Amino acid sequence: MKFEVNILGCGAATPTLKRNPTAQLVNLHDKFFLVDCGEGTQIAMRKNKLKFQRINHIFISHLHGDHYLGLVGLISSMHLLGRTRKLELYGPPGLREIIDVNLRLSQTELNFECEVVELDIKEKTFLFDDKSLEVFAFPLKHRIRCNGFLFKEKKRKPKVDKKTISDYELSVKEIVALKNGQDIERENEVLKFEELTKSAPDPRSYAYCSDTRYWEKLVDFISEANLLYHESTFLEDKKDRARETFHSTAIEAAKIASLARVNKLILGHFSSRYRKLDEFITEAQTEFENVVLASDGLTVEVPQ
Amino acid sequence: MKFEVNILGCGAATPTLKRNPTAQLVNLHDKFFLVDCGEGTQIAMRKNKLKFQRINHIFISHLHGDHYLGLVGLISSMHLLGRTRKLELYGPPGLREIIDVNLRLSQTELNFECEVVELDIKEKTFLFDDKSLEVFAFPLKHRIRCNGFLFKEKKRKPKVDKKTISDYELSVKEIVALKNGQDIERENEVLKFEELTKSAPDPRSYAYCSDTRYWEKLVDFISEANLLYHESTFLEDKKDRARETFHSTAIEAAKIASLARVNKLILGHFSSRYRKLDEFITEAQTEFENVVLASDGLTVEVPQ
Repeated sequence: MKFEVNILGCGAATPTLKRNPTAQLVNLHDKFFLVDCGEGTQIAMRKNKLKFQRINHIFISHLHGDHYLGLVGLISSMHLLGRTRKLELYGPPGLREIIDVNLRLSQTELNFECEVVELDIKEKTFLFDDKSLEVFAFPLKHRIRCNGFLFKEKKRKPKVDKKTISDYELSVKEIVALKNGQDIERENEVLKFEELTKSAPDPRSYAYCSDTRYWEKLVDFISEANLLYHESTFLEDKKDRARETFHSTAIEAAKIASLARVNKLILGHFSSRYRKLDEFITEAQTEFENVVLASDGLTVEVPQ
Repeated sequence: MKFEVNILGCGAATPTLKRNPTAQLVNLHDKFFLVDCGEGTQIAMRKNKLKFQRINHIFISHLHGDHYLGLVGLISSMHLLGRTRKLELYGPPGLREIIDVNLRLSQTELNFECEVVELDIKEKTFLFDDKSLEVFAFPLKHRIRCNGFLFKEKKRKPKVDKKTISDYELSVKEIVALKNGQDIERENEVLKFEELTKSAPDPRSYAYCSDTRYWEKLVDFISEANLLYHESTFLEDKKDRARETFHSTAIEAAKIASLARVNKLILGHFSSRYRKLDEFITEAQTEFENVVLASDGLTVEVPQ
């Protein structure tokens, strides 16, 4: 099953020709979740041939422009292109006001329900789930209220393969029983679920942390995530600047990855002062080996 | 002296990969005026190597997203990149609220003064002038309050060329007098200003009309402009749709150009339903000959 992250923008506060402001599209079993929505996100999605009408949930970490200024335009395009399906937004207090002011002043009445859930949280908080996934929010440590998000697959039931079904002439009822961990008693034999089923792969998770100062409490929220995105606005040379502006360095992001025992780390939110980014890898790898740099258009699979 | 219009975006409501939403940069004697500011305008300026810190005046026609959603991001980038010079904004009522809400929620205090002049006008209205130009606003006929803008060069004083200055050994005082239309009386001769000066070229003007239904009253506001931008969202095939949505067709834009006796017409704000735009020229030229199509990145000189 697909579980991947499409980087739509990985720049920091001021957009450049190389890096859009922050946005990511998370594809979890062909359900699409937009995480942050900087200016130009709808165009970045078109460039990457990602269909924005398939998004039903949008998560905004915080109300600095580089993380939300593409949102009203995206909602407006969804409306103009005929959307009727409900859209759910999760973000900090104030998000509803921004949407409302823009819709009111443009005299736009959306053809779809747009529910805004404002998150006023101090701990890791369950947002919603469905058959196959759960989504959580957790606080980050930034200049203004800012949240991270955690996307978790649910443990899937074991599989019964086609050959087994055919060899044992299993009925639908029997297959369901086996998948639920029950043995099947037949006249002359007992079919053991342990023998006839194959465990599904372990569920994976993706944690998104932007923007934040180095904060060890994060480790509790994202512990053992398979994939972690952690902002790294600066290199070591600007460690003090990172602290002042409530951002992180590459090394700090890597420390969090290491402490949280994640499988893989994506770095992003690079300050526009840096043109070449190799140093981000070099510095991060002093603390954590399996690290990649975000770049606009990159797709990263959530590893097992 | 330079007087030109840089098209940063010429699309209509939904941005596409080919056409950004509306924005234009007017360069009048190396003073830069931004007219409308759809999402992505700051990036379009970077692409076209236009320096946005040189803009001191921004004009917003109306509060439909495709005309202003790049504004808060642009102001924010101006701030982050160290601007201290005052910025003046002209737009419809509500513009200040949009700026204020976004700055308040992002806890941004600008390092420069940002004056917002809200235009509640029913007639052509003088906005400001300086030594070399005047700017006016005038109402358009759209679904929500919408204004056009008129940029006019002032009549320049006549010139005295270098050879004349040298031949007659003119003093600075004498040159000023000649340029002001005064003759110079010397002991043995009278220097006639008509003979020693050369008229400056006639002042030019640029009128910007977006978005609007066909409205003949416009002709009074923009009469004899050297260059007219008039929206043409639709072709004749969607004449009724144009009327319903308070937009214009190419033929209607051309009729206004013809009635107002302008020199040249730029068409723009093309609906994303049209991929090829040749028909816009063909239809417009049934009413007005000197017409060009806006395209992102195009520069049009204001003709004499």
